[in-house]
Amino acid sequence: MDHEGLNASLGAVSAQQTPAPKAHRIIMDSNKVVENIYLLVIVTLVSVLQNAFFAQKVERECKNHNTRTSAFERVSCANRNCMDAYPTFLAVMWCAGLCLSQAPAAFAGIIYLVVRQKYFVGYLGQTSQSTPGYLFGKRVITFLSLMCVIGIANYLLVRFYGSDYKEYVETITNAATALLLIP
Amino acid sequence: MDHEGLNASLGAVSAQQTPAPKAHRIIMDSNKVVENIYLLVIVTLVSVLQNAFFAQKVERECKNHNTRTSAFERVSCANRNCMDAYPTFLAVMWCAGLCLSQAPAAFAGIIYLVVRQKYFVGYLGQTSQSTPGYLFGKRVITFLSLMCVIGIANYLLVRFYGSDYKEYVETITNAATALLLIP
Amino acid sequence: MDHEGLNASLGAVSAQQTPAPKAHRIIMDSNKVVENIYLLVIVTLVSVLQNAFFAQKVERECKNHNTRTSAFERVSCANRNCMDAYPTFLAVMWCAGLCLSQAPAAFAGIIYLVVRQKYFVGYLGQTSQSTPGYLFGKRVITFLSLMCVIGIANYLLVRFYGSDYKEYVETITNAATALLLIP
Repeated sequence: MDHEGLNASLGAVSAQQTPAPKAHRIIMDSNKVVENIYLLVIVTLVSVLQNAFFAQKVERECKNHNTRTSAFERVSCANRNCMDAYPTFLAVMWCAGLCLSQAPAAFAGIIYLVVRQKYFVGYLGQTSQSTPGYLFGKRVITFLSLMCVIGIANYLLVRFYGSDYKEYVETITNAATALLLIP
Repeated sequence: MDHEGLNASLGAVSAQQTPAPKAHRIIMDSNKVVENIYLLVIVTLVSVLQNAFFAQKVERECKNHNTRTSAFERVSCANRNCMDAYPTFLAVMWCAGLCLSQAPAAFAGIIYLVVRQKYFVGYLGQTSQSTPGYLFGKRVITFLSLMCVIGIANYLLVRFYGSDYKEYVETITNAATALLLIP
Repeated sequence: MDHEGLNASLGAVSAQQTPAPKAHRIIMDSNKVVENIYLLVIVTLVSVLQNAFFAQKVERECKNHNTRTSAFERVSCANRNCMDAYPTFLAVMWCAGLCLSQAPAAFAGIIYLVVRQKYFVGYLGQTSQSTPGYLFGKRVITFLSLMCVIGIANYLLVRFYGSDYKEYVETITNAATALLLIP
């Protein structure tokens, strides 16, 4: 009995039962990681596709004219403004997804991408229009930052006071995400 | 025997006692993830705030003058140089925090942000001054890269030789972080 | 008794054997994290070194001439194009490494860095040559994106149908990485 208890450990025990438990456990572990981030990965992929779309616009304008025309200036500037804000967006979205919960973070990410698309298209618009400012998507970034702050505050509460409000917080966050849809 | 059974593992035992142990374990898991990164997330958030501060400076200058004045050129260039280096900084800080330990990495990150703030303010200074160069924060980035290298070297040592120097390395790293404070 | 022994867990059992098992387990945990990402971290470090190399080229050109010469324009533009694509590359590589497997992702990352080096050097070439376009490394980014998609598709298959093709997929991915070597 005793040496069974000593040897126990899930791995060792199941090793006597099934033929390939270790590989199975590794796959499970790997899937557990993917489970917590797969929505974030999907949003990241969509944002990469959008980046490629922007870059291709610049590429085409660059090859067509080859001179510093107004259209090239516009598309290049729009692309640069989007790219400047991109690492910030990625960092905040992933932090929010890891610290609190991934579904609202991914949803906010999608909304950010829609806002970015509108900004880019608006930048390329008629030359008579005034160009939009340097910043965009402030509300989404603020929302994601707040999610990070709340997630860390909840962690510190659990650690020092032992009270866990994560469930309530997640419910509220899920509801609050809908506010982002208001134009 | 009985107390062995009672001590058996939090998961297995509480599964027999309480009705919702799985949710509890998932929260614990999630908190374990947050525990290892929360300092890094805080530094990331501070850097995002700083980015927003920089971007707002550009936005204001852009709206006020609307012409390509010298002030606009300066603030735009300073912001661009900071943004160019931002993904590099984020990547190195997170790698260092994950591979070795998060406290020195986060501390170095804070110092980098201070250096960046000084660089930005210095760039906007009197027009008579010469602008600083393209690079800044070289020492912090080097320090963080070294932390990554040491973390990976330690992992490979554990894997191939079984000798683990992580504890000593972390102590030395904590002490070495103080060197970054030397101006 | 028997099922109690079977349910025991490594942590609880080894706690009775060794004096400092918790620290050991934490080190093991930390090493398990490093195990899954160390190749990605190495590639990230190499890319940071390359960024530093690019930045130093810009710095030197900036200090030498201090006027807007053609050489400065070229090196600055090449550096900017590389930096614009950098966050996209990092995000896709890390997602592919986490979702599917790190070895092919890191290998594709190395190839991307080689392509980037060639692009940068080509951009600085003789003034008579036409500069290359805005985009580069399309094939590598596409490959890494496909890896992400396959990893997530596999996870969803496991979750909803219980069929796991990860082993086959990884073998195919490893083989497919060789295709990137074709110029």
